[in-house]
Amino acid sequence: MKVGILGSGMVGETIGSKLVALGHAVKLGSRSATNEKASAWVSQAGALASQGTFAEAAAFGELLFNCTPGSVALEVLEAAGHVHLNGKVMIDVSNPLLFAKGAPPTLFVTNDDSLGERLQRAFPELLLVKTLNTVNCSVMVDPGRVPGEHTMFLCGNDAGAKARVRQVLSDFGWRDVIDLGDISNARATEALLPLWVRLWGVLQTGDFNLKVVR
Amino acid sequence: MKVGILGSGMVGETIGSKLVALGHAVKLGSRSATNEKASAWVSQAGALASQGTFAEAAAFGELLFNCTPGSVALEVLEAAGHVHLNGKVMIDVSNPLLFAKGAPPTLFVTNDDSLGERLQRAFPELLLVKTLNTVNCSVMVDPGRVPGEHTMFLCGNDAGAKARVRQVLSDFGWRDVIDLGDISNARATEALLPLWVRLWGVLQTGDFNLKVVR
Repeated sequence: MKVGILGSGMVGETIGSKLVALGHAVKLGSRSATNEKASAWVSQAGALASQGTFAEAAAFGELLFNCTPGSVALEVLEAAGHVHLNGKVMIDVSNPLLFAKGAPPTLFVTNDDSLGERLQRAFPELLLVKTLNTVNCSVMVDPGRVPGEHTMFLCGNDAGAKARVRQVLSDFGWRDVIDLGDISNARATEALLPLWVRLWGVLQTGDFNLKVVR
Repeated sequence: MKVGILGSGMVGETIGSKLVALGHAVKLGSRSATNEKASAWVSQAGALASQGTFAEAAAFGELLFNCTPGSVALEVLEAAGHVHLNGKVMIDVSNPLLFAKGAPPTLFVTNDDSLGERLQRAFPELLLVKTLNTVNCSVMVDPGRVPGEHTMFLCGNDAGAKARVRQVLSDFGWRDVIDLGDISNARATEALLPLWVRLWGVLQTGDFNLKVVR
């Protein structure tokens, strides 16, 4: 499968490397087609890896990942372009973290709205599925880093898109996946971040996750 | 021990019954000293159970519980009176749930403030410890209703108060308790409620909880 990843930071590269390891062709999208971090990643990630602009990565992918910082997500999707996004499944792992007011970060949208909903409203023909945003990127692609069973949430408006994303999550190693419903449920999973950042502080590692025990 | 409980709804009565079963004397506080629901509870809860006004319950208790709906918590603590609250440990199980805008509820304070902080600011000499607010009341007092190990969070400004509350949690059956730090961490645990109400909808039971797997 051809996958386009928007964002060439640590999250995008970690997911890109996993997808390449699973045999997928991955184009990492950045503001510039010659982004140096993305070039460095491509040079060590093998023949299935390539880089390009946000628009080129979006055009390339049959499946897309939004791995941008939440603060620029909308702008990056605009740069990718409606024509390259419409009708495609996008896994949105971004969070509306606001670092400007000091640590721990707060959220720039929460409670009666969410970043997932904002992106979906701005790109109504994009098949957005919010998931993986509640764990560290190393855990996203390797849930076995955290011992035992733990839970991944997903939400989105399109049942077919969610079924495809469930398969991707399964390929990444996720077993306990809870579908919360439509994209408005991103309010709930994005609201886990205030706890996540504090647990990171207490536990001094990102190798943890929540399990819904029932 | 003498325990004063503010709030004679289901949460207050459930906690009251557990405390009586553990051998504690419990006064359930209501707006009226003759609240009928509280009277009914007292008549079936045994000799250790009594009722009174918010002020009488607060005066009675060496340990206090805030089991009011979050929307009236500040008003109820005012009715209880600074003189009866100052210097005492209060376990705050309330949540800032706003039901007026429809289901699922949103929060009337969140992100850069919390109900726990509001109460602590209004009663600076109260030793407030926020805990138990992330589970159904039946699970609060009987974590074994949910199979296996799962996690309870607590936070508050006073180390001695938190040590006392840890003992109460242990008496209730809690084993995995994570101290997140000062009362500002109530922002994180209150922000779990949007997920909690949605999981209740998906799982169709309140007998669930989160475990921090690490």
